[in-house]
Amino acid sequence: MADPWQECMDYAVALARKAGEIIRGALKEQISVMTKSSPVDLVTETDQKVENFIISSVKEKYPSHSFIGEESVAAGEGSVLTDNPTWIIDPIDGTTNFVHRFPFVAVSIGFVVNKKIEFGIVYSCIEDKMYTARKGKGAFCNGQKLQVSGQEDITKSLLVTELGSNRDPETIKIILSNMERLLSIPIHGIRAVGTAAVNMCLVAAGGADAYYEMGIHCWDMAGAGIIITEAGGVLLDVSGGPFDLMSRRIIAASSRALGERIAKALQIIPLKRDDATN
Amino acid sequence: MADPWQECMDYAVALARKAGEIIRGALKEQISVMTKSSPVDLVTETDQKVENFIISSVKEKYPSHSFIGEESVAAGEGSVLTDNPTWIIDPIDGTTNFVHRFPFVAVSIGFVVNKKIEFGIVYSCIEDKMYTARKGKGAFCNGQKLQVSGQEDITKSLLVTELGSNRDPETIKIILSNMERLLSIPIHGIRAVGTAAVNMCLVAAGGADAYYEMGIHCWDMAGAGIIITEAGGVLLDVSGGPFDLMSRRIIAASSRALGERIAKALQIIPLKRDDATN
Repeated sequence: MADPWQECMDYAVALARKAGEIIRGALKEQISVMTKSSPVDLVTETDQKVENFIISSVKEKYPSHSFIGEESVAAGEGSVLTDNPTWIIDPIDGTTNFVHRFPFVAVSIGFVVNKKIEFGIVYSCIEDKMYTARKGKGAFCNGQKLQVSGQEDITKSLLVTELGSNRDPETIKIILSNMERLLSIPIHGIRAVGTAAVNMCLVAAGGADAYYEMGIHCWDMAGAGIIITEAGGVLLDVSGGPFDLMSRRIIAASSRALGERIAKALQIIPLKRDDATN
Repeated sequence: MADPWQECMDYAVALARKAGEIIRGALKEQISVMTKSSPVDLVTETDQKVENFIISSVKEKYPSHSFIGEESVAAGEGSVLTDNPTWIIDPIDGTTNFVHRFPFVAVSIGFVVNKKIEFGIVYSCIEDKMYTARKGKGAFCNGQKLQVSGQEDITKSLLVTELGSNRDPETIKIILSNMERLLSIPIHGIRAVGTAAVNMCLVAAGGADAYYEMGIHCWDMAGAGIIITEAGGVLLDVSGGPFDLMSRRIIAASSRALGERIAKALQIIPLKRDDATN
């Protein structure tokens, strides 16, 4: 039987590549004005431009499909996941990186049907790395098959996470105390490149053993989530229970044992779900 | 007048490139055995191989020159800096990254005469980025001129630093409390790619606004230090005073104002100097 979503996936890869070109162009163009003018305006403008480009292109080809996009949600549209084929889009994952031209900025597209991720695309556009995964068919970076490290022993693990953008003192304290608890186990180290999607792809590629974070959104996780599982990794909630795309929390690990061990060390940050109705 | 050290610098670039090939080769070769066997042995073996290659190549061409190398010091040789032309070498900056194949691993060479850095080379060999700087002649990455961001306002800054490899509970506490104090100012964020040399090159390239760390060594800073200053940045001690290559502490900032503001926020970790005699 032909794959019902292969055409969508090919289209998504082409759109992500084109979106990456728009982002690289914006970075190049704005190099001279960025430090002096308002970088917030630049990022908003490029974010919206890229998201509009992707959504309008998909709408034209697949008018019945649904969307959850970071910018659309910011503009007041809902983010409740239905059973309809749904494109979950982060036009620029790593907006702070983008503003600073820290060289990890990704376009993330996750495609969900009946609330299950069918394929995911993460295009790390400054590095020109195209990560893709189709359910049941493996994960790839620029055509090369990805495999997680398989590490089960936390004392031999290298983790990726972020200090986050929330500056609430209590949240900062929990984030740092989680790091303290993990470092003291001990672990080999912690890295942070500034985008959830690229962090997860680094786990999928076997370069890090696990990623965890609280406070991110479904559009940060949908594309990379299936790249992790198709590379042999597991997704868990930070409680150690089943992963929930709308929960704003994730552990993406190279083995269940490692993911569960990380969950044990984490203190949980209270968060409003992505699909909360108020 | 001809540049007296240009020939040395050209030679250093060629050696760093060749060293990077050895490292990439070791990573490729060992992919299958790494997770199961002892990664510590692999890194030690490759570290020593690369350092021996660089030192023996330089000795052959410049028999009167001196050396300070990470592996030689580990093997019991001193690291006291004299006025003699001295090659300060880190064969693999980012050894934990190397073990995990986290894709930031650098060969670092600093060349010091009369205790002043004359040129620096950092070859981020997995990315294939060759960073170079010659005193008074600017800093470059793959031939493209580098320029720091020039950011002076800490509240608009993106910093790079590391959680480090020291697992002493007091040290971990100071490292995290320094992050807490900086995040609370607030700043835009903190990134960590796992190598001092690459972190500093990211500041030189304008992708981050400053780097600070305590506990690193002269071979982590000598190559990248001059890349920072030749890109328009400044080196300071973590106290805010003058930078000292043998002190194991550094702030590398895109402006003096930013460096001094970071110094104010930092609690200092007590450390034995690289040139301590016992």
